[in-house]
Amino acid sequence: MAALSFELLARDAGSRARAGRVTTAHGAFETPAFMPVGTHATVKTLSPRDLREAGARILLANAFHLSLRPGEDLIRRMGGLHRFMSWDGPILTDSGGFQVFSLAQLTRIGDEGVRFQSPLDGSPCFFSPERVVEIEEALGPDIAMPLDQPVAYPCDRDKARAALERSQLWAERSRRAHRREDQALFGIVQGSVYADLRREAAERLRALDFPGYAIGGLCLGEGRALFLDTLAAAMDGGLPADRPRYLMGAGMPVDVVRSIALGVDMFDCVLPTRNGRNGWAFTTAGPVKLRNAKYREDAAPLDAACDCYACANFSRAYIHHLFRAEEILGLRLASLHNIRYYQRLVAGARDAIREGTYGEYERGVCEAWEGAAGDGKGQET
Amino acid sequence: MAALSFELLARDAGSRARAGRVTTAHGAFETPAFMPVGTHATVKTLSPRDLREAGARILLANAFHLSLRPGEDLIRRMGGLHRFMSWDGPILTDSGGFQVFSLAQLTRIGDEGVRFQSPLDGSPCFFSPERVVEIEEALGPDIAMPLDQPVAYPCDRDKARAALERSQLWAERSRRAHRREDQALFGIVQGSVYADLRREAAERLRALDFPGYAIGGLCLGEGRALFLDTLAAAMDGGLPADRPRYLMGAGMPVDVVRSIALGVDMFDCVLPTRNGRNGWAFTTAGPVKLRNAKYREDAAPLDAACDCYACANFSRAYIHHLFRAEEILGLRLASLHNIRYYQRLVAGARDAIREGTYGEYERGVCEAWEGAAGDGKGQET
Repeated sequence: MAALSFELLARDAGSRARAGRVTTAHGAFETPAFMPVGTHATVKTLSPRDLREAGARILLANAFHLSLRPGEDLIRRMGGLHRFMSWDGPILTDSGGFQVFSLAQLTRIGDEGVRFQSPLDGSPCFFSPERVVEIEEALGPDIAMPLDQPVAYPCDRDKARAALERSQLWAERSRRAHRREDQALFGIVQGSVYADLRREAAERLRALDFPGYAIGGLCLGEGRALFLDTLAAAMDGGLPADRPRYLMGAGMPVDVVRSIALGVDMFDCVLPTRNGRNGWAFTTAGPVKLRNAKYREDAAPLDAACDCYACANFSRAYIHHLFRAEEILGLRLASLHNIRYYQRLVAGARDAIREGTYGEYERGVCEAWEGAAGDGKGQET
Repeated sequence: MAALSFELLARDAGSRARAGRVTTAHGAFETPAFMPVGTHATVKTLSPRDLREAGARILLANAFHLSLRPGEDLIRRMGGLHRFMSWDGPILTDSGGFQVFSLAQLTRIGDEGVRFQSPLDGSPCFFSPERVVEIEEALGPDIAMPLDQPVAYPCDRDKARAALERSQLWAERSRRAHRREDQALFGIVQGSVYADLRREAAERLRALDFPGYAIGGLCLGEGRALFLDTLAAAMDGGLPADRPRYLMGAGMPVDVVRSIALGVDMFDCVLPTRNGRNGWAFTTAGPVKLRNAKYREDAAPLDAACDCYACANFSRAYIHHLFRAEEILGLRLASLHNIRYYQRLVAGARDAIREGTYGEYERGVCEAWEGAAGDGKGQET
């Protein structure tokens, strides 16, 4: 049996939006899907039970961070990542390539891999495509991302081309190194904001026949218009319709619904939890900035349309008080609500695609969030 | 109907330990009872659901802190403390006398009350017995503690006598000012470590016919032997057998079981949550200091005898990792487990009292905790 299968359940008539189901060694999840980010094998402030009750069915963790602490061998000896963090559903690990390039002191990068100093203690580390596959096979997620070389935005064409070539080489080596039959290794489309490079990357990766494809290196400050154009180019580049497509690190609600319209199936983003910890609630009527004095005596829940534990039990006034008093329960309730918001966002998209009303659904989300701050940067560092 | 009733269900033959049931306007709880401390209308890191599932049936909050932020009038307008914090069971508020004397810049204390500067913004504040009753009637807990004048340890006899006289005067004024019929106002026995002063205070308060009595000003560094002697003197002073007795701010597990043997019915303490946030787990086999490297790869739960969510789902190794990575879920799981430990501690006492095995139970707890660090200081500041 394949490590991963993808079933297409419905297509939208007016866009490339689609609804489906991905089945992994630890169960299935419906797409479009949103994956809460659990960098250190925990989604910040939340328990696995919270996440399941909020509707999450697949979580993301980070191979780079976990290999540094507590170490992939320890997690393997403790029964693997699922058992370690007590999440029995699907897990995807990011390779952490993005974090290597953004956090670590780089000492050398070459075709063989990346030498860098550990951001924890400065000790020398080496990541190659083969080493990352080894880490992810030890951790045991259902879906693993290979090492690639992301580029910052802006990035000139020559540099983008060189990073693409190296990422392509690494994708091939990762594919060869990967052994674990209960784990699916995805390919990652890079190419900065150059539509032709994105198309080329997609085509070349397709030839390697990955069970799923990710689009990386977007939502890095390029702005929504360029983001959507580049994403469309990557998707048009011939990513096969029968494989799930995962847009890495996006985004604001508008980015999510627009990307779904371009055919994206999977998302991850730190915004619901990071913004939650900053007192920023996502609601069906737009953002609620909880520290604002206007919520001091507001008896309404965060979002009257929401069914989460926070909205069922507490007022904005109470959560405002918790943030003012610097109480951790405030971080928890805002994070929990935001995760639920994103789960309802993609569940609403799934329903609308099945019912043939996706265009209307997309417009509704865009109207509620028009002009809301946030550039969609959603990668954990 | 009285605001509070107390039913005695069983007495231990070998000690003064007793099991009972206190009924309030928001339901009943069994005694001996342990009240988690929710100073700012939240038990740090935990939700009301967590607390109920951990076995807590009554919570403590702090009138001083809540009157400063968000203000008792706001809480009253939001439907009272129960609704504000979404806890529909019994609540007890401490007056915050202890916090006024330990946190605030005092400007003057006299028989009329205490003038002090707000620790939040330096603004002038005035607490009198009548003002504290007013705050607590606005907040609406089921049990309210009057303003008293605690003294630090050590304290000379004259100062202890003077504070006792003032506390007695304030108890009388509080009793006269108190109107709310669904709220029980307790008396507080002071007298530092002087047995005769404790006995006298208990007798004089008894004459005021409070529905319950607290013993304050202990567990402040006097050491366990002196603590227990003084507590025994306060209890012997003729506190009526048909009223609940509440030992404020205690303590370590040994203090709790020893105090139960002297006839205490109710406890509150910040140790389970404060120590939990410091990575210190209470277990049936003594303390587990989770940051210790020896737990790095320990697949066992915090306490194999425990049935809490943390113990049912996570290893010491995982929680150790969370503390190392400074992840909030670690604080939550340790706090949750510790609250469950204390709930099981008093539930075990209740069972043992009913079954006539309390002496054995007390010895078991003392053996597990012999020599464990901690002087039992458990007052929130």
